[in-house]
Amino acid sequence: MKIAIDGMGGDNAPQVIVRGVVDGVNEFGHNVVIVGDKLSIERELSGLKFPAERIEVCHSSQVVEMGESPAVTIRKKKDSSISVGVRLVKEGKADAFVSAGNTGAVVCAATLYLGLLPGIERAGIAIIYPTPAGISMLIDVGANITPKPIHLLQYGFMGDAYSKHILGKKNPTIGLLNVGEEETKGTDFVKETHKLLIDSMLNFVGNIEGRDIFSGKTDVIVCDGFAGNVVLKVAESLTLTISKFLRRELNKNVITRLGALLSRPAFKGLKKDLDYTEYGGAPLLGVAGAITICHGSSNAKAIKNAVRVTGEYVNRRVNEHIAEEIASDIS
Amino acid sequence: MKIAIDGMGGDNAPQVIVRGVVDGVNEFGHNVVIVGDKLSIERELSGLKFPAERIEVCHSSQVVEMGESPAVTIRKKKDSSISVGVRLVKEGKADAFVSAGNTGAVVCAATLYLGLLPGIERAGIAIIYPTPAGISMLIDVGANITPKPIHLLQYGFMGDAYSKHILGKKNPTIGLLNVGEEETKGTDFVKETHKLLIDSMLNFVGNIEGRDIFSGKTDVIVCDGFAGNVVLKVAESLTLTISKFLRRELNKNVITRLGALLSRPAFKGLKKDLDYTEYGGAPLLGVAGAITICHGSSNAKAIKNAVRVTGEYVNRRVNEHIAEEIASDIS
Repeated sequence: MKIAIDGMGGDNAPQVIVRGVVDGVNEFGHNVVIVGDKLSIERELSGLKFPAERIEVCHSSQVVEMGESPAVTIRKKKDSSISVGVRLVKEGKADAFVSAGNTGAVVCAATLYLGLLPGIERAGIAIIYPTPAGISMLIDVGANITPKPIHLLQYGFMGDAYSKHILGKKNPTIGLLNVGEEETKGTDFVKETHKLLIDSMLNFVGNIEGRDIFSGKTDVIVCDGFAGNVVLKVAESLTLTISKFLRRELNKNVITRLGALLSRPAFKGLKKDLDYTEYGGAPLLGVAGAITICHGSSNAKAIKNAVRVTGEYVNRRVNEHIAEEIASDIS
Repeated sequence: MKIAIDGMGGDNAPQVIVRGVVDGVNEFGHNVVIVGDKLSIERELSGLKFPAERIEVCHSSQVVEMGESPAVTIRKKKDSSISVGVRLVKEGKADAFVSAGNTGAVVCAATLYLGLLPGIERAGIAIIYPTPAGISMLIDVGANITPKPIHLLQYGFMGDAYSKHILGKKNPTIGLLNVGEEETKGTDFVKETHKLLIDSMLNFVGNIEGRDIFSGKTDVIVCDGFAGNVVLKVAESLTLTISKFLRRELNKNVITRLGALLSRPAFKGLKKDLDYTEYGGAPLLGVAGAITICHGSSNAKAIKNAVRVTGEYVNRRVNEHIAEEIASDIS
């Protein structure tokens, strides 16, 4: 197995990417090919220890910037690290692709070059996150901001397969994001999606509200990419906002400052509980290939863990399971 | 001025409602009329001290339950505390109505009995919340889950007037919730709304992302009621989830438990920073009347503060300002 990695994507590329990849190779024994400016990547590699036969560099001359329009950039920058990396998968020279670069461009390149799995009409980005009741996942957080109900049904199958084969859940529960639990609630889009999910073979438990996303009420939550994107960004920022308020309060006097000092291991523990880098990125589900999208501000640990989960994704044949589930539900 | 209060709405009605109202009357000197089961309300009032001439009870024989369908219940339960309370406003017997009951039923009754302000086509529920950069507001969090772009423009004017006249902001900034900042991003709905906001007299600063809602980037954020409802519920639940994780971590050993003890004033301060009860409920903007919707789990303090902000809403003639702004933008 070989994993292609976008060496140029993310706020701290290529340095942080290369370090994370080397850590991943050393820890998990995967073979990788880092795509991007050969000179810069080799410079980063030069000081690090790793089995030389496990890391290749594949040169690409262009970089997709974070603000660029995905559709335009994929057409114009055919030699970008994203396009080249995805094409390595297409051509069978790699089994998977990991990028912390422009999310839209990765979705666009993957859909264009790899196509979708049989029975899937749209790709969805899933985030995997900790809750007090265990790990849950939310699909879609922005690949498709104007989906049809059938796309959300397909996300349900993707989430089900991922939950079973990567997260080890036996019979994952699936919830539909809505403004209320009753099936009469919501937009026409949500009501129609509800019907499709009820009629499917999925373990659909009904509508869930925003408050249930991070309580862990269901293993999988499906929603349109607009709402999902807002949820993802609210969650990230609210954690920061609460920390800011708490820090301000803890700094108010000597006693609370001492309290904060003694509580430090707990704050570190909390940080770890909420640490997205443990989960190593968001799988782009539905495309005919294993693609992991990492946060633009990923650190080396996030990239290392992305190498791990992407390897699991390939080894456990998640895409085959998604296609099988869809096929058996249709038949 | 007289404020009507739903004595039967909310998880702990009528006890908590009556206590909150009495505290509000004693502290702010408003006159109120509590609507609901006369016997129960008078029983709650009997042990409390307040100027008798300031609190009336208006009997109503029915109660709207939390799970009931708003449209059906407003037609069938004409003598519910919600319908009676809103009609008191309609008939000029009260200047405002406050309820911690079924939100949909309050929106429905208010729209039906009071109608909308000139130039407004849909009501919107606004939440007011603290950010590290000051107080912000988000409209709509669920009154209207399938709005048109023009409705969001109208929310912009409502938020602008509220921000100026209640929150004391000079020239409030208005943001539009989207999946990215560029104006080319988002659904057709969002793009069309963006155009309307650009062409308006509002201090529109452009698209903002989910991460900017709680950072306080803009004073007012407008969005569709589906996304807004999800944001509201995610924010409420995530605060609880983070507290749960933190409590678990703080309990891990003697040192962190001691740290937690010393830090307690900071945690209390944080709780106060994030305490929605300080803001006393969510104004239902756009209807021809002053309506405040409180959280179903409101405590006496939340109800007391709802009495305060509702009084301010009436005294500062927010509805007149909204109508003026809309009129001057059209002309």
